[in-house]
Amino acid sequence: MCAAVKRIALLGSTGSIGRQTLEVIAANPGRFAVHALAAGSDVASLRQQVEAFRPASAALADPLAPAADFPIPLLRGEEGLVALASDPQVDLVVVATSGAAGFAPTLAAIRAGKQVALANKEVLVMAGELVTAEAGRNGVLLRPIDSEHSAIWQCLQGEDRGSVERLILTASGGPFRTRTKDALARVTPEEALRHPTWRMGPKITVDSATLFNKGLEIIEAHWLFGLPYQRIEVVVHPQSMIHSMVEFRDGSVKAQLGFPDMRLPIQYALGYPERLPHRYTAVDWKAAGPLTFEPVDLERFPCLRLGREAGEKGGTYPAVLAAADEVAVQLFLDGHIGFMEIPQRIEEALSAHRPDGPLDLAAIQAADAWTRPFVLSQG
Amino acid sequence: MCAAVKRIALLGSTGSIGRQTLEVIAANPGRFAVHALAAGSDVASLRQQVEAFRPASAALADPLAPAADFPIPLLRGEEGLVALASDPQVDLVVVATSGAAGFAPTLAAIRAGKQVALANKEVLVMAGELVTAEAGRNGVLLRPIDSEHSAIWQCLQGEDRGSVERLILTASGGPFRTRTKDALARVTPEEALRHPTWRMGPKITVDSATLFNKGLEIIEAHWLFGLPYQRIEVVVHPQSMIHSMVEFRDGSVKAQLGFPDMRLPIQYALGYPERLPHRYTAVDWKAAGPLTFEPVDLERFPCLRLGREAGEKGGTYPAVLAAADEVAVQLFLDGHIGFMEIPQRIEEALSAHRPDGPLDLAAIQAADAWTRPFVLSQG
Repeated sequence: MCAAVKRIALLGSTGSIGRQTLEVIAANPGRFAVHALAAGSDVASLRQQVEAFRPASAALADPLAPAADFPIPLLRGEEGLVALASDPQVDLVVVATSGAAGFAPTLAAIRAGKQVALANKEVLVMAGELVTAEAGRNGVLLRPIDSEHSAIWQCLQGEDRGSVERLILTASGGPFRTRTKDALARVTPEEALRHPTWRMGPKITVDSATLFNKGLEIIEAHWLFGLPYQRIEVVVHPQSMIHSMVEFRDGSVKAQLGFPDMRLPIQYALGYPERLPHRYTAVDWKAAGPLTFEPVDLERFPCLRLGREAGEKGGTYPAVLAAADEVAVQLFLDGHIGFMEIPQRIEEALSAHRPDGPLDLAAIQAADAWTRPFVLSQG
Repeated sequence: MCAAVKRIALLGSTGSIGRQTLEVIAANPGRFAVHALAAGSDVASLRQQVEAFRPASAALADPLAPAADFPIPLLRGEEGLVALASDPQVDLVVVATSGAAGFAPTLAAIRAGKQVALANKEVLVMAGELVTAEAGRNGVLLRPIDSEHSAIWQCLQGEDRGSVERLILTASGGPFRTRTKDALARVTPEEALRHPTWRMGPKITVDSATLFNKGLEIIEAHWLFGLPYQRIEVVVHPQSMIHSMVEFRDGSVKAQLGFPDMRLPIQYALGYPERLPHRYTAVDWKAAGPLTFEPVDLERFPCLRLGREAGEKGGTYPAVLAAADEVAVQLFLDGHIGFMEIPQRIEEALSAHRPDGPLDLAAIQAADAWTRPFVLSQG
């Protein structure tokens, strides 16, 4: 193997994407070295990962979680994650944290000129304008880890960005695709947490059931690929085999397909521009079932509309969108509000929001801080 | 428009692909100049095209067809086509002739270092080894015009050829996809000529109904993309929306999709590496019907197996394959043999063929010359 070993800082290593990133690293021996691992508060899992992957350093976002006798130096808090993300020894930073915890480390990694693989939706949703501007200034290509954006990125290889007509994001439609609006209002947290396709955490699983997630992906696609919102479409494709498509100006369409397996887009982001040799399950097309398509019903799934609208308004609206959803989903999971009240709460927050001053990280954090108590106080 | 005007020699201008090539040229004003047109024997159509497109020269493969008062210099025979293909004024040669008529002009165009767009299957099927070796020596990229090979070519853009695992050629399955073997034996020429998807000539329409065409495409794909036969698969996809797919070594699959319209792959080949702005019908995915897949039944469609076997044997076997099919299809169209006797005649010829001496154009022509009377004399 003549390729240099790539040294990785993995932020959010104990979550679903973090764990799968370590699987990908283990499946491609000699390619990667885990230089640093960071978790939120799951010390026990982080300790196991440190023992298995022997990083040089680690960090815990939680400043207080007890971690006695941790086997290697353990940094703490946001500064800890920022330090790992900008460590001169690191080549590539995988941002697999969730929520706003990814902001500062992502910006630090970009400013340090690292390769950056991004699984944290909020970073692009809430701060897409700032983050992509910073990436542009530093010549950093943001590598998407989402299956949809990875599909689009793969389809764009070798193509002139100017020849792109439309991006077509596919959506499984979630577990409640065929339910009536009344039936949706009765969905329980337990039901919502059974997602048919991907292995994911509870927040993302609910976001996937409301199609809120797809709204975030529209915003992410806007920032990653620089297309206006009206040229980013969503189509329901229940089999989740086509991960997304790109239509070019001549009418030709390219799609990226495969069984749903997040390790593939993770491996693509880690190995880019090389396709690493480790092989995930391949489709036997001769035996493949039908691939179907349908429109999204925005009456039943208003979260998708709200995502698009917040993206189009721009500024601090996407931050309000994301924060409102975070609170509303938690209220739903805790049994305080119904499934169809999630979009209601988000819409109320977006309507009540009054943007103020220039767009910077402080403004985004202020919008986030305003939104959370606002959503809790409604209803 | 700052791009230089590309001067085109179009060989086979009065056939289906030739006419659609002229449509593409007309749809992209300022991009192309028709420098030369050549037809087989259809003088009336050629005359109309000359009046519409004002080329500098023209040729007719038929040495005898009357063409009094032709408005521009009219060359004749194979030498005529070769002269147009190697004209120093020409940038790109479109080889849309059928059968062996494409050989000499294609080789001449390659040796003259032209850009070459290839719609003539026989050139790669019968002489793939010679033609691709010559293209390699002259640094000429052969641009496929077939929808399947164009799809694969588009999917390979920006990808390392070494990372390709499999090519998956899609096949509509033809109009008789669901017929029993007994019902196939009773297919009439009239029925066979009604093909559901593409606008094509009679020979190709029958080849599409027997799946012989797909066998040729396996051989073409082998030579165009340099993959061994066992890594080239065929899957039936009746909707003809996925034009073909590439599976990479990581298990990721890329597909090129769209409504069947030959003008798109023609335009891609002419404009490459640019995607020209003229837009062909785009798919509304929200309203798209299911895409289905099934295996090819080699019992009912033995021509596909024969194509693959002839390709694997190599040498002069593909020439025997192509010549035997040409004669057998004519026998079928003339009512002398049944639909299921087409593969029988081909198989007899392949079994009886004895390759002899080194592979060169003379050997290929000799195999072709041996096959035709052999097939006529059987049965």
